[in-house]
Amino acid sequence: MFTAKWLNPSALLTDLYELTMSQVYLEREMLAPATFSLFVRKLPRQRSFLLSAGLWPLLEALQELRFSEEDLAYLESLKLFKPAFLDYLRNFRFSGEVWALPEGTVFFENEPVVEITAPLPEAQIVETLAINLINIETAIATKAALCVLAACGRPCVDFGARRTQGLEASLHAARASYLAGFSATSNVLAGKLFGLPVTGTMAHSFIESFEREEEAFLAFAENFPENTVFLIDTYDTLGGARRAVEIARRLAERGIKVRGVRLDSGDVIELSREVRRILDEAGLPEIRIFVSGGLDERKIAEIVSSGAPVDAFGVGTKMGVSADAPYLDLAYKLVEYDGRPRMKLSEGKITYPGRKQVFRRYTGTGLFYEDHLGLREENLPGEPLLKCFMREGELLESPPPLSAIRERALEEIARLPAEVREGKRVPAPHISGALEHLYRETAKRLRERL
Amino acid sequence: MFTAKWLNPSALLTDLYELTMSQVYLEREMLAPATFSLFVRKLPRQRSFLLSAGLWPLLEALQELRFSEEDLAYLESLKLFKPAFLDYLRNFRFSGEVWALPEGTVFFENEPVVEITAPLPEAQIVETLAINLINIETAIATKAALCVLAACGRPCVDFGARRTQGLEASLHAARASYLAGFSATSNVLAGKLFGLPVTGTMAHSFIESFEREEEAFLAFAENFPENTVFLIDTYDTLGGARRAVEIARRLAERGIKVRGVRLDSGDVIELSREVRRILDEAGLPEIRIFVSGGLDERKIAEIVSSGAPVDAFGVGTKMGVSADAPYLDLAYKLVEYDGRPRMKLSEGKITYPGRKQVFRRYTGTGLFYEDHLGLREENLPGEPLLKCFMREGELLESPPPLSAIRERALEEIARLPAEVREGKRVPAPHISGALEHLYRETAKRLRERL
Repeated sequence: MFTAKWLNPSALLTDLYELTMSQVYLEREMLAPATFSLFVRKLPRQRSFLLSAGLWPLLEALQELRFSEEDLAYLESLKLFKPAFLDYLRNFRFSGEVWALPEGTVFFENEPVVEITAPLPEAQIVETLAINLINIETAIATKAALCVLAACGRPCVDFGARRTQGLEASLHAARASYLAGFSATSNVLAGKLFGLPVTGTMAHSFIESFEREEEAFLAFAENFPENTVFLIDTYDTLGGARRAVEIARRLAERGIKVRGVRLDSGDVIELSREVRRILDEAGLPEIRIFVSGGLDERKIAEIVSSGAPVDAFGVGTKMGVSADAPYLDLAYKLVEYDGRPRMKLSEGKITYPGRKQVFRRYTGTGLFYEDHLGLREENLPGEPLLKCFMREGELLESPPPLSAIRERALEEIARLPAEVREGKRVPAPHISGALEHLYRETAKRLRERL
Repeated sequence: MFTAKWLNPSALLTDLYELTMSQVYLEREMLAPATFSLFVRKLPRQRSFLLSAGLWPLLEALQELRFSEEDLAYLESLKLFKPAFLDYLRNFRFSGEVWALPEGTVFFENEPVVEITAPLPEAQIVETLAINLINIETAIATKAALCVLAACGRPCVDFGARRTQGLEASLHAARASYLAGFSATSNVLAGKLFGLPVTGTMAHSFIESFEREEEAFLAFAENFPENTVFLIDTYDTLGGARRAVEIARRLAERGIKVRGVRLDSGDVIELSREVRRILDEAGLPEIRIFVSGGLDERKIAEIVSSGAPVDAFGVGTKMGVSADAPYLDLAYKLVEYDGRPRMKLSEGKITYPGRKQVFRRYTGTGLFYEDHLGLREENLPGEPLLKCFMREGELLESPPPLSAIRERALEEIARLPAEVREGKRVPAPHISGALEHLYRETAKRLRERL
């Protein structure tokens, strides 16, 4: 992890049963191609769409996945695995095919985000990895997209690093939130790894380390004359605003322009109005007001709809863990093996068999109209959304710049009808006749065999 | 990451402002010792206690923290930092002192989990790391402890890896849940890194890959004669139970004992009763019933209180992300710098100044009675909970085995009065007279200076 390629997971990061099952597959020569479909069974109650993310981290991980000699020695010590299987793992390389929604695509329940076709043990062993990476980045990208929508054009900055679930998660959060339209991150390593704009202000501890608030302001601005945002709520927000004004004026005489002030506590709607008045009355209309502290899409919407003069948002924890929907009901299900459709019949958990495609139709004005979920070889009206990214373990293209994924994501969200963006309608795909037929036939065949 | 020491974060994984502030500190020679206190301001609504975890990962990370030449080149490219500061980072080694609650300690609001004292820039730069690691492990350990309590002695196994927030998070979840009393994990890498028992059953895809369910059962059991648990809900749970019985009998003739069956869907309370009856009537009382699928402490309590014959639980996503409280209100606050107490006065966010200690008192029968939060040098009645783990950047002891931390955790939770364990009372520490006095004096001094 945190290598040049930023994600270099050990192939051992998998569930034990992926390996035990694979030993059985190998011994019985069950090496025919298996297709697993990764999809969200049901959207979280608080979401009316999802924004796909995590594909490129997954593709790069699939390429790199290896079992080291140390890993194999550990597996041997468990006294579960036979030498032939450990040899198989020693030579393990992912050699499969990956179809997927490009990152930054809007999608809905039952629509495959990724479909992996590979010899059965390979497709099985990568399950944990595939679900994990798509789950975290998609959950966070979607939450971040809601914040961006709520901010109505005001910049949102990722402040999540300190309370994401682990350090790696902070990198996913920085990447996924940028992809969804955030403007920058405070996470320096994410900035380096993904080429994101990095930014930041100052902490309360900085103010407190000085004997007086104004000393702290002055010291920072002298050191960073182009990049100073004063944190003004350490002792008393309005007093802080007045001291910021005083220092900003003194600095202006020396050609140093303070960029903004930050509020991190209290009633920010009321406070931002009073702070704006103090700044404007001092002839400092160009100083911007930055707000942070417990923000999510609901709080941002409240601030924006109040008309409060807030210019930008620092969004941390609640976006960084997707607090109201911290996981997706994302499943990786076998849909075909050895040329035959597969599925389970468990209560309340229907899976459609077969390799799939999503066909999307738009209105005359280019808005999302409806999706049809069909079989991959079908030719239904609309734009087919899944494309092939990897074949025989080789990438078919290079990763696009994150800025291009971000553009796609913003366009996708702009094409959603207002009632979907606002959570008033939750689209679901129509199931094609051929897929319905395959489902019924497969269910019949399975029931007959029981 | 995932190195032999499992956590090897780049020092760049920090918020940009930690570095910009530190450049100011360095230039102004503000290198005196600063103490930061890491504490939870308010417990999540759904928690009546917290179980500390993440300390050893943090201590090991502090020891390893370095800026590489590549990191420094990136920082230079930002055109924010001066050569003298980059040189300082080049030689960066954490040289501070760490006081902390031992892992597996129960604690409450405002009680420091960790207190770090180091030259101001060092203590500042490690903020992001310190909050992050304590936050995720403590949140998950607490959630896992609630599952263990609900299971009333039945084993709980970590099945979280696939939907934790990132791959590193799955390691934290495996470690923290074991520490809190889980019996094993499905996460193979976690098993290797932490010496945890690893376990697993089989997936629906395994059953579906075979033409008939009974073939799948037989193939697995022949391969793993000591470790077979049949997943019986792929097509029809009760039919699956009957087929499992049939195969178990045939295997018994060959000396192979099936260990259990797993239910992953449907009304598991009702189904487990019927499956138990089928197993018992077949003369297989030793086959255990294992349940998984969307479990958390509430669902486990419901199953246990129903008297359903469930022998063990596979607990995944909801524990692995602490779904109902996916983050803690964990803050890292400056409480002393250069020998003087520090704090902010922001609305609704009181911080007590000074280095602290928590003194815990027990009842005559050894149950938790109350905590007093005081200054570190105070000598209050009760057991002082924070101890010194690191001095001048050197560990004062070796990491204890995880099994010892687990024992401590179980003991700590057993010492909680029932009304706290059950969430009916949420203790909070009494504030010592000396700490109250210091708070008032510091507030007065700060207000006078404004």
